[in-house]
Amino acid sequence: MPEHTTVAIVGGGPAGLLLARLLHLRGVACVVLESRDRAYVEQRQRAGILEQGTVDVLRAAGAGDRLDREGLVHHGIELRFDRRSHRIDFPALADGASVTVYAQTEVVKDLIALQLAEGPPLLFGAEVLAVEGADTGRPTVRYRSEGRDRTLTCDYVVGCDGFHGVARQAVPEGGLTTYEREYPYSWLGILADVAPSCDELIYAHSPRGFALHSMRSPSVSRLYLQVPNGTDVAEWPDERIWDELDARFAVDGPWRLERGPITAKSVLPMRSFVTEPLRHGRLFLAGDAAHIVPPTGAKGLNLAAADVTVLATAFAELHDTGSTELLDAYSDTCLRRVWRAEHFSYFMTTTLHADPAQSAFETRLQIAQLGRIADSPHAAAELAENYVGLPLTPPVGEPTRAPAAPVG
Amino acid sequence: MPEHTTVAIVGGGPAGLLLARLLHLRGVACVVLESRDRAYVEQRQRAGILEQGTVDVLRAAGAGDRLDREGLVHHGIELRFDRRSHRIDFPALADGASVTVYAQTEVVKDLIALQLAEGPPLLFGAEVLAVEGADTGRPTVRYRSEGRDRTLTCDYVVGCDGFHGVARQAVPEGGLTTYEREYPYSWLGILADVAPSCDELIYAHSPRGFALHSMRSPSVSRLYLQVPNGTDVAEWPDERIWDELDARFAVDGPWRLERGPITAKSVLPMRSFVTEPLRHGRLFLAGDAAHIVPPTGAKGLNLAAADVTVLATAFAELHDTGSTELLDAYSDTCLRRVWRAEHFSYFMTTTLHADPAQSAFETRLQIAQLGRIADSPHAAAELAENYVGLPLTPPVGEPTRAPAAPVG
Repeated sequence: MPEHTTVAIVGGGPAGLLLARLLHLRGVACVVLESRDRAYVEQRQRAGILEQGTVDVLRAAGAGDRLDREGLVHHGIELRFDRRSHRIDFPALADGASVTVYAQTEVVKDLIALQLAEGPPLLFGAEVLAVEGADTGRPTVRYRSEGRDRTLTCDYVVGCDGFHGVARQAVPEGGLTTYEREYPYSWLGILADVAPSCDELIYAHSPRGFALHSMRSPSVSRLYLQVPNGTDVAEWPDERIWDELDARFAVDGPWRLERGPITAKSVLPMRSFVTEPLRHGRLFLAGDAAHIVPPTGAKGLNLAAADVTVLATAFAELHDTGSTELLDAYSDTCLRRVWRAEHFSYFMTTTLHADPAQSAFETRLQIAQLGRIADSPHAAAELAENYVGLPLTPPVGEPTRAPAAPVG
Repeated sequence: MPEHTTVAIVGGGPAGLLLARLLHLRGVACVVLESRDRAYVEQRQRAGILEQGTVDVLRAAGAGDRLDREGLVHHGIELRFDRRSHRIDFPALADGASVTVYAQTEVVKDLIALQLAEGPPLLFGAEVLAVEGADTGRPTVRYRSEGRDRTLTCDYVVGCDGFHGVARQAVPEGGLTTYEREYPYSWLGILADVAPSCDELIYAHSPRGFALHSMRSPSVSRLYLQVPNGTDVAEWPDERIWDELDARFAVDGPWRLERGPITAKSVLPMRSFVTEPLRHGRLFLAGDAAHIVPPTGAKGLNLAAADVTVLATAFAELHDTGSTELLDAYSDTCLRRVWRAEHFSYFMTTTLHADPAQSAFETRLQIAQLGRIADSPHAAAELAENYVGLPLTPPVGEPTRAPAAPVG
């Protein structure tokens, strides 16, 4: 492991791994430090919906072979509400676009295999203790590996270490502004060894709460149920889960949810979070270290891929030309996309979930909104365009600076 | 005044007056009972934005002459947020549509003049005490006029007497389901003798709160400020109002708000309200008696016009053919449109106002939503289509029955 590198990457999840790969291909030296071991990282269940732009950048990174073989291309999703079904047709509504179902675990496996084969250095079990000197010309990353404290000096640090990561803590008090919202519900997610009961994802609004039917492969289903915060999976034996899924997916007309052995159960909290700017001196933040979305819009992994794509191009420009112009624009460039995705994820979440405190009026507004999406090509296209993903650099319409605080 | 009529109309606001006129033209006998005097009704300040469909039905009712001469046709509105302006171009986004600025006071004057000249009977100062026997074949309206209690029997009663009206109270407990939401802010509305500072309405989102620049005529401006609930107009001397309007409409670039003598000030509460169904036996509810929207989407008067247009056609069919088919469909037909407008009005209201309890995250989501409307033709068209008004009978996509209560 070198004692100095150009870009020190904190965190070996999909953001850090993809960034390292893109930098490597552009000739920029870097090192990835990941606190967990390889097996843990490869099995961490997360998202599974890749926007076209994410697929494109994975291919460009050389990580597209298995994705192209095993990924499931989806041309739409189904909305269920008020016992009705409505399909959102992506190509028809969003200029030919589609998404690809390919689990984050598989993206990570592909990127790790590439990285271990071709570099740059990737160190597992390297617990980063602190990022120091982000304000100086030579930041330092202190980490602990194989029982010893070590240091890595670098020209730049990128924090790809998630919401609970240490990189963001390197910014002094007042250097970042954070925006946050928690939701009064969580998801109970299961993996089941059963063929999916549908060809495309089903997003179901129900008076009993939200449900989502997704899939990992032609033989593995991934399903989610809205549950109260603090839910213990022990409260949810398999049969209760299947019965509740049946109730929430119920429609007028033929439909049958196939049951199978449940191989994993977990409870996922829901959070919206943005920190601004995405840079402090020579420290950059990317992916979940900088922003969290609730999973309803399938935007988390895609935002992370967009961040590191912009960042890799900026580091490559610096490397090739000495210009920091793109690097200086990184935060603004990405925050436009981030806020769009934050809004979309909030919209999908609050339109589809039953807030335990919501009034009957608000439930009817949800149904009216969903009905409008079913009736109006513009409303449907607005959903489709956001779901399949906006261009990497959206038009300069959404400001990135914070407005003043509201006045009562 | 007859002692019996076919349709007794409770309330002589725009809904009741337009219904009476449409019924008269189709040969259906009716009587309008209005508790206030003529001067009061003609000066009650309310909405001023007419959808094309409302203009069309007023013309069909014979009340289009002055409207066509004096109404101001508007082809767009302006959104202001984050010190930027964005125009919503109605014809380009919504298939050539426009709206007409013509105050409700003028609509009411035109309809009263017609009614007094040509009938049917319109009684001012007739305070309706109770509607009775809606479940029977012959309902009765008890009212007090010129100091004496009187009764009017009829085949049908239509409650056009607003949110606080008596007609809705004729429905026995459990006969109606109501949906309601109040908002944590009101509007301070002013009339000013000054030419509007803009050609089209300006809807302004500001960290200080919402503001709206509207107009009544080329020489009279109508402006609104978001204020806390319970605001006393005495707290708002003229100069404070103009200063606050200046602050909220501020944009980067040239703009000047012209000031002039303020001739009226009032505080308007904001409410969403729907009652279902719109019928109980031989009693029908229309306009504000059945549903209220906050004024941000300019939908209240237009919903009332749509209700009575559907109802007049239904009574005419009954009169011509003996069929109650359209009458039986009235509630479902109108509620689809009502819920769409409720959602749109809620969307406009909550996107543009500063809720005193909202977080900085929620303020940024508002800006992201408004920025998306500025950037995306689909998002802009979705606003435009709703603003200019949907077809009288929307597609059957939005259900009207109540879903079950949410389960925590």
